[in-house]
Amino acid sequence: MADKKMVEAITSMDVDFAQWYTDIVKKAELIDYTSVKGCMVIKPAGYAIWELIQKQLDERFKATGVQNVYLPMFIPESLLQKEKDHVEGFAPEVAWVTQGGLEPLQERMCVRPTSETLFCDFYANDVQSYRDLPRVYNQWCSVVRWEKETRPFLRSREFLWQEGHTVHATAEEAEERTIMMLNLYADFAEQVLAIPVVRGQKTDKEKFAGAVATYTIEALMHDGKALQSGTSHNFGDGFARAFGMQFTDKDNTLKYMHQTSWGMTTRLIGAIIMTHGDNEGLVLPPKVAPIQVCIIPIQQKKEGVLDKAFELKETLAKVCRVKVDDTDKTPGYKFAEAEMRGYPIRVEIGPRDIENGKCVLVRRDTREKIEIDIADIETKVPELLETIQKDMLERARKHRDEHTYVAHNMEEMEKIFSETTGFVKTMWCEDRACEDMIKEKLAVTSRCMPFAQETVGDTCVCCGKPATKMIYWGKAY
Amino acid sequence: MADKKMVEAITSMDVDFAQWYTDIVKKAELIDYTSVKGCMVIKPAGYAIWELIQKQLDERFKATGVQNVYLPMFIPESLLQKEKDHVEGFAPEVAWVTQGGLEPLQERMCVRPTSETLFCDFYANDVQSYRDLPRVYNQWCSVVRWEKETRPFLRSREFLWQEGHTVHATAEEAEERTIMMLNLYADFAEQVLAIPVVRGQKTDKEKFAGAVATYTIEALMHDGKALQSGTSHNFGDGFARAFGMQFTDKDNTLKYMHQTSWGMTTRLIGAIIMTHGDNEGLVLPPKVAPIQVCIIPIQQKKEGVLDKAFELKETLAKVCRVKVDDTDKTPGYKFAEAEMRGYPIRVEIGPRDIENGKCVLVRRDTREKIEIDIADIETKVPELLETIQKDMLERARKHRDEHTYVAHNMEEMEKIFSETTGFVKTMWCEDRACEDMIKEKLAVTSRCMPFAQETVGDTCVCCGKPATKMIYWGKAY
Repeated sequence: MADKKMVEAITSMDVDFAQWYTDIVKKAELIDYTSVKGCMVIKPAGYAIWELIQKQLDERFKATGVQNVYLPMFIPESLLQKEKDHVEGFAPEVAWVTQGGLEPLQERMCVRPTSETLFCDFYANDVQSYRDLPRVYNQWCSVVRWEKETRPFLRSREFLWQEGHTVHATAEEAEERTIMMLNLYADFAEQVLAIPVVRGQKTDKEKFAGAVATYTIEALMHDGKALQSGTSHNFGDGFARAFGMQFTDKDNTLKYMHQTSWGMTTRLIGAIIMTHGDNEGLVLPPKVAPIQVCIIPIQQKKEGVLDKAFELKETLAKVCRVKVDDTDKTPGYKFAEAEMRGYPIRVEIGPRDIENGKCVLVRRDTREKIEIDIADIETKVPELLETIQKDMLERARKHRDEHTYVAHNMEEMEKIFSETTGFVKTMWCEDRACEDMIKEKLAVTSRCMPFAQETVGDTCVCCGKPATKMIYWGKAY
Repeated sequence: MADKKMVEAITSMDVDFAQWYTDIVKKAELIDYTSVKGCMVIKPAGYAIWELIQKQLDERFKATGVQNVYLPMFIPESLLQKEKDHVEGFAPEVAWVTQGGLEPLQERMCVRPTSETLFCDFYANDVQSYRDLPRVYNQWCSVVRWEKETRPFLRSREFLWQEGHTVHATAEEAEERTIMMLNLYADFAEQVLAIPVVRGQKTDKEKFAGAVATYTIEALMHDGKALQSGTSHNFGDGFARAFGMQFTDKDNTLKYMHQTSWGMTTRLIGAIIMTHGDNEGLVLPPKVAPIQVCIIPIQQKKEGVLDKAFELKETLAKVCRVKVDDTDKTPGYKFAEAEMRGYPIRVEIGPRDIENGKCVLVRRDTREKIEIDIADIETKVPELLETIQKDMLERARKHRDEHTYVAHNMEEMEKIFSETTGFVKTMWCEDRACEDMIKEKLAVTSRCMPFAQETVGDTCVCCGKPATKMIYWGKAY
């Protein structure tokens, strides 16, 4: 029964983008809702994407010297309160544990919304000397933020993520690590998820609670809205002073450590859906597709067809993640299902193809059909997967560039946002008042001040005074 | 400074086993204590072991058709209470969340101590038809049990684990999966962790809250105490009735699903320490050793020595996990440190060795030194790792067998437990009263009724009436 629903059409993204999104997460069986309001079940098809993200991100981390650890999920209230900005940022949205077993707790604890405070407490004891630095630790875990409005993957009360937390002997090293991780994220988003991103710095208004500087990668979704897809924070020695995190340096004096943190979350799965999906369903970039190739036998009851399908599977299993759909549904139904689930390539093989030594590859991203010799399948399929991966990035980049605009004054900016949705580049004077005004008037937020600065004018888009930065604006998830 | 402490001797296990254990977890840098009472930090050396356990266990799971998912960490109180035995078993030891953000919750939620109730709630909606069965799902996550007495890895308020939860159309299939997973655990413990285990069934007194049958693998530690190392439960349709988990069967009638669950935890790291460790520190089985080979250069300031060490590293990196210790500590210090950390092999290489084309392999488990030709290192090291893995299992099995005793009556049993600690095999009438009596008198618990039943007598060790089962007893962690 669940299957029958699957191939009914989903809402068109042009009609109702939010409903289109919800239809995909449900019908591609990525998540399910639960009795726990605002929390979701990540089902096998969704979790397998997360496993591929984890594996490839973790390998990249380790190549830069990151080590994984695990810290407790609870933060005593007194620990959360040690850094003023941080507690103000997070206290309104944490879940509080007040009872353990049959006894009320002496001090209540929150479920971690993020673990800066725990890492500070840990490093304060763990690091004594400059010889112990740097410490470059990361953990994979779930965190809780008590959001009022929730949406699958994009904003849920509990979500999965990785959080890296590092300490360094100098401010320079901390800044270097912060930027290194931001670039690692950008490269991962583009090369693995096929999502082009703008790298830049958040304004003071938008930076992380307690950070000196927050860097971000910003992606543009199909509907023109921005999605913050990864952030990297430099804390300077602010937390170190609040938590007494000192070390003996080479010159035998006590110094404060310099600290960073950086994270990516299951929200990336939402980014994949909204960057690549279409009206037939999910479209997965090959590198994070749990099934890269689905073989669909035609007239599978005819002698030799299923055997050939499984023979091809065995051949392809050496070079990609492959399955055969040998259920008793019709081929048309199977095609629709394979499209809904976003398998990058489907292989069609029937009695006639077998006779001719041929089979048909169908690209999910373009729906192009390519007839090939069966004998070539082991080389053609990996080549095509690479091509799809590359093309998906370029197509997304084109869409992003076509929806990036320039505005020189409020009138132009207002006109753009009244007609369309996308990134708007402007100059800015770096005054918070202008940022506040733009948010109030246009209901858009600053996304980032790109590393790759361009001069698109001389004066601030809002106040007209001399500008110091180019900045991106957008409506955001 | 941390390093200096490392090579001070640890407490001998014969003097104080508990202190020996604590010394190892601290000095091999596996864990650290935290401000959160009863919760620990798993440090890089500890977490890397867990990653190897996860990877190898997960591969074995997937080979049997298991799919990974993620369910919420919170359980609403009403959901926890649906199954009577289950709530009685867990309610006294859960942590309660009573406030989300700034508002008190309408219904309090506990942090999952285990997720049967959440999976039931999920499967009740997710499964409609016999075509949807079986569902064989697993999740890797952390759980919380508000223990009063805690010990690193063995018993902590939060721990990491995997929990598999399956539903099936028939009682037979559920039982088959329960036993399959127990055998998978036993095989994993023996082949990967080099820990021999006794497979068997728990008594009704010791089974899991809400289960029809609990199966267990029981291992024997160095000190003769038993450690339950993995469990697999058959729930019959008890939860299904409590949660309304029905499906339409082939015959078009509604039936209740049959359910299993099974789990292994970070406690396994404790089992590794207490099965293989010695008075020099940790001894890691090669298959879960994050570093399998540590190359220690002798007179490393002499020309060519460090170059040769890194050349060997490059060669060995193709066949094992290897590092060079090129710090400025003395070789003797490095040897002691390598022993504390449990690296299965250390390679000693100095100017003289290089001249002769030789190097020395030192086994961590036996401390045996083996001189080999450098040219052979790429084949000799993997061979030796395999030998170590095998020998460690056999040594542990010998220890286990030497500490397994037979008792025919209470007098014999009392004598054994007053003189030593180990497994005691007896016959049993299956009467709960006898089990209670033995626990009260001897402060030991039933460990399991082994699948491999032997006849070690005719009458119950306690009451002397005709016996129906052979059973293992022991002092347990």
